[in-house]
Amino acid sequence: MGIVLNGATVVTAADTYQADVRIEGEKIVAMGHEIKQPEDQVINVDGCLLFPGGIDPHTHFDLPMGTFSTSDDFLSGSKAAVLGGTTTILDYATQFKGETLKTGLENWHTKADGKCYVDFGFHMAITDWNAQIAQEMTELVDQAGVSSFKLYMAYKNILQVDDGALLQALRQAGECGALVCVHCENGDVVDYLVKEARAQGQTAPYFHPLTRPPEVEAEATNRVITLAQLAEAPLYIVHLTCSGALKAVVEAKLKGLEVYAETCPQYLLLDESYYRSEGFQGAKYVISPPLRPAHHQEELWSGLHTGNLEVVATDHCSFNYKGQKELGLSDFSKIPSGAPGVETRMGLLYTYGVMTGKLTLNEFVALTSTNAAKLFGLFPRKGTIAPGSDADLVVWDPRTSSTITVEALHQQVDYTPYEGFTQKGQAKHVFLRGQHVVKDSQLQGTRPTGIYLSRKPFLKRKVGGNV
Amino acid sequence: MGIVLNGATVVTAADTYQADVRIEGEKIVAMGHEIKQPEDQVINVDGCLLFPGGIDPHTHFDLPMGTFSTSDDFLSGSKAAVLGGTTTILDYATQFKGETLKTGLENWHTKADGKCYVDFGFHMAITDWNAQIAQEMTELVDQAGVSSFKLYMAYKNILQVDDGALLQALRQAGECGALVCVHCENGDVVDYLVKEARAQGQTAPYFHPLTRPPEVEAEATNRVITLAQLAEAPLYIVHLTCSGALKAVVEAKLKGLEVYAETCPQYLLLDESYYRSEGFQGAKYVISPPLRPAHHQEELWSGLHTGNLEVVATDHCSFNYKGQKELGLSDFSKIPSGAPGVETRMGLLYTYGVMTGKLTLNEFVALTSTNAAKLFGLFPRKGTIAPGSDADLVVWDPRTSSTITVEALHQQVDYTPYEGFTQKGQAKHVFLRGQHVVKDSQLQGTRPTGIYLSRKPFLKRKVGGNV
Amino acid sequence: MGIVLNGATVVTAADTYQADVRIEGEKIVAMGHEIKQPEDQVINVDGCLLFPGGIDPHTHFDLPMGTFSTSDDFLSGSKAAVLGGTTTILDYATQFKGETLKTGLENWHTKADGKCYVDFGFHMAITDWNAQIAQEMTELVDQAGVSSFKLYMAYKNILQVDDGALLQALRQAGECGALVCVHCENGDVVDYLVKEARAQGQTAPYFHPLTRPPEVEAEATNRVITLAQLAEAPLYIVHLTCSGALKAVVEAKLKGLEVYAETCPQYLLLDESYYRSEGFQGAKYVISPPLRPAHHQEELWSGLHTGNLEVVATDHCSFNYKGQKELGLSDFSKIPSGAPGVETRMGLLYTYGVMTGKLTLNEFVALTSTNAAKLFGLFPRKGTIAPGSDADLVVWDPRTSSTITVEALHQQVDYTPYEGFTQKGQAKHVFLRGQHVVKDSQLQGTRPTGIYLSRKPFLKRKVGGNV
Amino acid sequence: MGIVLNGATVVTAADTYQADVRIEGEKIVAMGHEIKQPEDQVINVDGCLLFPGGIDPHTHFDLPMGTFSTSDDFLSGSKAAVLGGTTTILDYATQFKGETLKTGLENWHTKADGKCYVDFGFHMAITDWNAQIAQEMTELVDQAGVSSFKLYMAYKNILQVDDGALLQALRQAGECGALVCVHCENGDVVDYLVKEARAQGQTAPYFHPLTRPPEVEAEATNRVITLAQLAEAPLYIVHLTCSGALKAVVEAKLKGLEVYAETCPQYLLLDESYYRSEGFQGAKYVISPPLRPAHHQEELWSGLHTGNLEVVATDHCSFNYKGQKELGLSDFSKIPSGAPGVETRMGLLYTYGVMTGKLTLNEFVALTSTNAAKLFGLFPRKGTIAPGSDADLVVWDPRTSSTITVEALHQQVDYTPYEGFTQKGQAKHVFLRGQHVVKDSQLQGTRPTGIYLSRKPFLKRKVGGNV
Repeated sequence: MGIVLNGATVVTAADTYQADVRIEGEKIVAMGHEIKQPEDQVINVDGCLLFPGGIDPHTHFDLPMGTFSTSDDFLSGSKAAVLGGTTTILDYATQFKGETLKTGLENWHTKADGKCYVDFGFHMAITDWNAQIAQEMTELVDQAGVSSFKLYMAYKNILQVDDGALLQALRQAGECGALVCVHCENGDVVDYLVKEARAQGQTAPYFHPLTRPPEVEAEATNRVITLAQLAEAPLYIVHLTCSGALKAVVEAKLKGLEVYAETCPQYLLLDESYYRSEGFQGAKYVISPPLRPAHHQEELWSGLHTGNLEVVATDHCSFNYKGQKELGLSDFSKIPSGAPGVETRMGLLYTYGVMTGKLTLNEFVALTSTNAAKLFGLFPRKGTIAPGSDADLVVWDPRTSSTITVEALHQQVDYTPYEGFTQKGQAKHVFLRGQHVVKDSQLQGTRPTGIYLSRKPFLKRKVGGNV
Repeated sequence: MGIVLNGATVVTAADTYQADVRIEGEKIVAMGHEIKQPEDQVINVDGCLLFPGGIDPHTHFDLPMGTFSTSDDFLSGSKAAVLGGTTTILDYATQFKGETLKTGLENWHTKADGKCYVDFGFHMAITDWNAQIAQEMTELVDQAGVSSFKLYMAYKNILQVDDGALLQALRQAGECGALVCVHCENGDVVDYLVKEARAQGQTAPYFHPLTRPPEVEAEATNRVITLAQLAEAPLYIVHLTCSGALKAVVEAKLKGLEVYAETCPQYLLLDESYYRSEGFQGAKYVISPPLRPAHHQEELWSGLHTGNLEVVATDHCSFNYKGQKELGLSDFSKIPSGAPGVETRMGLLYTYGVMTGKLTLNEFVALTSTNAAKLFGLFPRKGTIAPGSDADLVVWDPRTSSTITVEALHQQVDYTPYEGFTQKGQAKHVFLRGQHVVKDSQLQGTRPTGIYLSRKPFLKRKVGGNV
Repeated sequence: MGIVLNGATVVTAADTYQADVRIEGEKIVAMGHEIKQPEDQVINVDGCLLFPGGIDPHTHFDLPMGTFSTSDDFLSGSKAAVLGGTTTILDYATQFKGETLKTGLENWHTKADGKCYVDFGFHMAITDWNAQIAQEMTELVDQAGVSSFKLYMAYKNILQVDDGALLQALRQAGECGALVCVHCENGDVVDYLVKEARAQGQTAPYFHPLTRPPEVEAEATNRVITLAQLAEAPLYIVHLTCSGALKAVVEAKLKGLEVYAETCPQYLLLDESYYRSEGFQGAKYVISPPLRPAHHQEELWSGLHTGNLEVVATDHCSFNYKGQKELGLSDFSKIPSGAPGVETRMGLLYTYGVMTGKLTLNEFVALTSTNAAKLFGLFPRKGTIAPGSDADLVVWDPRTSSTITVEALHQQVDYTPYEGFTQKGQAKHVFLRGQHVVKDSQLQGTRPTGIYLSRKPFLKRKVGGNV
Repeated sequence: MGIVLNGATVVTAADTYQADVRIEGEKIVAMGHEIKQPEDQVINVDGCLLFPGGIDPHTHFDLPMGTFSTSDDFLSGSKAAVLGGTTTILDYATQFKGETLKTGLENWHTKADGKCYVDFGFHMAITDWNAQIAQEMTELVDQAGVSSFKLYMAYKNILQVDDGALLQALRQAGECGALVCVHCENGDVVDYLVKEARAQGQTAPYFHPLTRPPEVEAEATNRVITLAQLAEAPLYIVHLTCSGALKAVVEAKLKGLEVYAETCPQYLLLDESYYRSEGFQGAKYVISPPLRPAHHQEELWSGLHTGNLEVVATDHCSFNYKGQKELGLSDFSKIPSGAPGVETRMGLLYTYGVMTGKLTLNEFVALTSTNAAKLFGLFPRKGTIAPGSDADLVVWDPRTSSTITVEALHQQVDYTPYEGFTQKGQAKHVFLRGQHVVKDSQLQGTRPTGIYLSRKPFLKRKVGGNV
């Protein structure tokens, strides 16, 4: 016995067509007409769009930040994700200084296993590079289903690695079939600018963007591309925000380098002026890299449309305004850096991308799901609507319109950066591996059923002819 | 009663999956498992790839050239096309000086109707611009299913129009939902260089590329992009060959302009050295724009992979070496310009693109079929494998290997530029709107069954979220 | 007996030093200390700067425009020039349709000989290209001292030549030692846009810039650079106004092409908003290319400072607002195109370039004098302060400040585009080949003493190691 | 009583003219005709060119390298310099770890004072950055005549500073009127690549360039330009070698940044193939950055001609092949890095720049003398031929031709990288502050008479209108 979704317009990264979609167990088995089997349950979704479940490949759930953690853990974060139309997240498991990668990974399994409403995988963030870690990278790819690793060019003395380590990690990744994800800001420079600002008594939130200007990101992006070129390794730039960094990516692609990049809704829709919000409200937007002057937005949209940016992720990393963001009341550099977004990603990109004509529906699917699946070893299990793929499906009702408010959202954080934004359409039903987990926009059941996704290596995907 | 293709790997511009595909009448009705209906005929295609039928949007069949015509007419040309895996061609119907567009279009219907083994549409080539022609453009879009028009920046005093006409045509096209296709070479300059060469007694075929250098194409490409920008109209560059022109296209896209471009197998696989072939053999490669120095090839491949070039077409325009090309024995400028290619396009791109790792299978499908369908108002009827789409299907057997020779091809011309090239894989079966027209690589039946395709306007496709 | 200028700061394109300068007859004979000869007259110029006499290589004096001529002829124009610190002008002698170059040149000799207060040479503007004209180019270079020629890419059906002619002219120039100067705007496009505007009843002056947008200039600039590259000839772009054209020039230089460019004070100091001046006042700024949006100015200044623009000329082409500009009261396209500037060039560039720190004094001299002399075959006779050079000297008093008004100027035209602009410094004394023609800012004597300058070819200057 | 040089062609950065030049004491007092005073000595230099004495702003004389020093000290190095036509050198005084800048400076005074045949100044190389050093920078500018400082992005753990230090140094320099000179190679990457090569047993000299590829230099150049932009400070790139770095400089200039760059004869004339010289001979060319593939040379020449590179210096840092270079016989990374060149700079640039038509004579003077003087606070005392300037003059006889051999040179090192190269012309006479130190190409006297040059700050030079 299967389920037939009847009457929707199916949208993939390439196609848009009217057809029934039939699910059997966890899998999609057919799309088309006359595919219903006698025992099947039929769910009518007339007038709706059917998208592959969203993939958000950049979340930070339950991330320790000194004495506290992000306000969202896997339970709350994944609940918000699925209600927003996202059925897979890739969280950044972190190796802290002195730990092995395996320890870091185990810690993250403890946080997530059995507590996630969506399927999940882990990138491994490396903060402490040495020969043994290099060896562990290969083991994680081969044995643990972790085929992407993150390194930081920022956060001096905390997360930052030097260029030699970065080069070595890229080379190792290239050899073992991993994709290296890099946070591109020049940490030495940021560190100096922050110290300088503090020395001058500059404490307000709007000094945050002034101490991490776009040049600092563009420079680091250019630098790591050079390293990837020398290492002959693929590269994935996380949360790209500015035209200078985009220019570096475009030039790299034209040279034939395998350089990929993601941006986030906050960089497409918000701008630097938010740091001047009344009182201490600017702290809500303290994220790294920071919001940019508005003219960068148009270039990012153009980057998405031309295929120079592959992914729209969220970098969801939520801290409450009360009690957490407020730690920086007298010093902007003490404001925990991050903002929520996992629930609003699909709706915002649909509303401000598709409905404005900036993106096609197919581009929307590619950017929110397909490309991430291809880049991170999940395709074609995730990221498309095709026979044999997991039945991760979003029934999107385009006829609704709503206003985003913190009250209406399910993220466990006391504000949303998008308060008051209009959203066109919404996730009416969501299926996770065939389970009807969201019905009429309500979460069904209370037990999280998301499972860990062991991912394929990066290099081997080339054989399938993808990306 | 339908047909079920069983056991293939289905490839679309986004997806690659194992599934049955079910055809009913002229249409694809389902892809998946358990989709067979009791009465269906099952054709086993185990181990094969299933592509959407190829679309070649640049052919010149039965084109008059003064006292003679191209050696291929619609019968021979379309036969070769379908055996090579192409199920749709878009031919350049031409308005000759003094004619109305409608007369030109009627002439081409007379040439093609009932004589084409593949489905066909027409672009309309305009050589004589005036206010009445502008009016006719709109009528052809609205009433005749012709939503693309070609203008020439080359061929002074014959086909060339001036920049004012080009701008006006672009503006008209932007308003009536048409896409303007442009041949980009500076005709005034070519005319001067050819005269200069002839005055100096330079008669051999290798003076052909010297009188049409890459700069002449790059300049014209840059110029017409400026015109399209001023006209706020979309633009399609035909047969782009060189890095300078590609650079202009890339910059245009980054500015957010709707500029698209095609290249052809000859520019990807052959180079300028062919003009120095023994004796008069160089004449076989006299095409416009000419073959380029080899270093351009790598940039074109990179352009395809990065999505900066959307289409691989052929510019099939065949003249026999004997009797036709030989007209230029004592003067290279008398050599009729053009070469055959409609039959070898899919095989060459598969062999030298996919099998070398330069292109993914999905890119191959996008470049040979999907993108052309989207750009020229045929999607989703053509260009993909989806419920509701025409059952134009190529069963590609990747296990074969052969050598390209003129004897083995079906084009009606006494040479192939690819003589001796290896081809991996081949079109084993071809379905045209559900008809099994090629079976075990043999044409079935003798009567051509291709029909005229009335195409949708360009602008309206935006609503569907395509391209 | 000579003259010794005592106490000035001598400024050349490379040097700034305190020294006496000694003149004997028409020539500078020495700079330094202890150079006075017993009989010498000493003129004390303490506290002043001493510049080489300005060279304005772009004027249109006594130019016929249908039923009338520019308001300035050689008498009035050259008087204004010398009072502003310019001692040499190069006027554009024009061959009108059907004329030989020699006829055109003779006509200009008739206009200028004996009527010019500054030394003068002629570029020859060619509007009617044919084989005989090509031959005449060489003759003018060899026999008439005319080593630069101008062609127009704009003014369809009047001055415009096609790309074949342009290429041929460039090639001829390259061979005979001439420099081709080109007006870069796409005339076909402008012609169409003007017709379109007029058809829509758009008559006000501000439609002038809208029908000649920057893209039209950038395109033409890029195109003619391609032609110069094919011709292997040097190229000089007149009145460059916008960032797109500058970008083309920069790229050409980096490729090693001999491409030079001039801009004018109006493009550095005025902007597009002037076309919206009250009433019909916008007509005063109707020049071609038109004034641009203000952001282009900064790029032009940067182009001057980086040496990518070599010359600041005026394109002085004056028409009275009353009676002449007013011819376009009901149709902007009837406004005679041009504006005055020969008198204000040095003062404006000193005030808004040097005094703002945008330019060094040496760059000021290079841009107003030295580079033009080098490019146009006058160096080292003109363009510097050196032994053996003509004693064309400007004693610039930097201690004065004044306001530019039409009443205070000597140009024979009823307005100045710079009305109300402040000028720092002024030409206190001017020497023309040793004659003290301006004394305490007053013209001395009534008889014009400027002579015709027979110029050297372009190519031969390379041997001297110049430019 | 003075000296009159009679009959030469005087060449400055802007001018070329025939004139006498009169010297009185240490200074030039006049150029021109009729300038001889009764008592003057006249030296006839008919047929010769007269250049301002060469300035080599990049030497390493008497530089300690662990257990030994460079083979040239100030005596031998400066003797070679003056015989080659160079009358001023700027040597890199070095603060070693733990030292104050003043200690470093004193050490260099001890090395140079009274032992230098040419005038000399010091840049201060900083290898150990802290707050006290920042303070010292200002003191050296104000009190010691040192207005330029060098930092290294390469030589990890030895000379390299991090980006925070670099930014801070740039900011300090911008405030105190200093120019920061930077060695641009990514030291972390080089360090890793060298370790990797050694681990793989790669010991031959040709692994030197492979472990310091052009990308490493282009990256660092791009990075430090970003830092200079953030610091709003001027920047001088030493020994630029490759097209990627040049591209970064060009883009910076177009943005209006004050970024300057030098290259060296070795990068213009030698290429990477030299590392494959027979036996261990490749060690002679072990310099950092290394020689590059030949195609970079053309771009560097173009950079000089377009003014995007301001200076040709030598980076003279000589080690004997025997005994010193040989320390790396079994490990390329042990080869002391550096090569001689101070004596051959002028002759090579004249021969391969001027005589080939790549550079004009004026550009030659600007590149070998004037620009360095302007950038490093020596102008107009040094760098030109003008009244009041030091009488540092080179009488260049263009009629000679010779072959460069180690035997014929005066550098104290057992090889020259230019062995066998032809040199056109030579320094026949050299005057240092009026002293006739080289006569008929022979050094006069045995006592060095060069003096220390206290240099002006960078920022104040803007007022003089220079650079």
